[in-house]
Amino acid sequence: MPRYRGLTLRILAKDSPAIGPGKAALVAHIDETGSISAAARAMGMSYRRAWQLVDALNESFLQPVVLTEIGGRRGGGARVTEFGRELVQAYRRMEHKASIAIARDLREFNRHLRRPDTTRPGKR
Amino acid sequence: MPRYRGLTLRILAKDSPAIGPGKAALVAHIDETGSISAAARAMGMSYRRAWQLVDALNESFLQPVVLTEIGGRRGGGARVTEFGRELVQAYRRMEHKASIAIARDLREFNRHLRRPDTTRPGKR
Repeated sequence: MPRYRGLTLRILAKDSPAIGPGKAALVAHIDETGSISAAARAMGMSYRRAWQLVDALNESFLQPVVLTEIGGRRGGGARVTEFGRELVQAYRRMEHKASIAIARDLREFNRHLRRPDTTRPGKR
Repeated sequence: MPRYRGLTLRILAKDSPAIGPGKAALVAHIDETGSISAAARAMGMSYRRAWQLVDALNESFLQPVVLTEIGGRRGGGARVTEFGRELVQAYRRMEHKASIAIARDLREFNRHLRRPDTTRPGKR
């Protein structure tokens, strides 16, 4: 789930995670599939858990992140708002900046790991 | 638990968290108290959970992070190794660098939060 080798970043609101790698990936999947259940499946996450995360996202921010349509087959579709897209982009930017800021320290850190995270250099 | 306003950073080993805010704080508390149970109490964490985290830390790295003494009252004491201290310092350095790197983005991000994390500016 983390996009950057060796780190995950979470952004907090009053000490509770507002967005992190899981929620960012979920919103991106909902944006791709137009469906919370399809996004949950793609991530190997339960539908219930995906709903909880969407609820938490919509609660955390002043504007909605995901809009859901009631009715239709399987409870209707879901749509990521423009704000939701910007939110994921903002999170990705912060992840990227943090990753660059600690790149050198991370290499040193990795030397001490029993199983260093060397799957792929840099972004993946 | 997070020391920097608005973010938490986790360092991964093969996609599993090697160290994050919880483990770093636990090691610091063990170093202060010389005891896993006292550290757990100080953090409102179960003794069992604290042990699991210490085990995971010692498993993650090539060198031990916490040494435990068997025997004596309450199962003996615990000692943070020099490597363990350096590890926490290295983690704190990365947390600090990440926090500086995203400070501006975080301020913009905070504007969209329903309950912005404005408890204290900067480090706490």
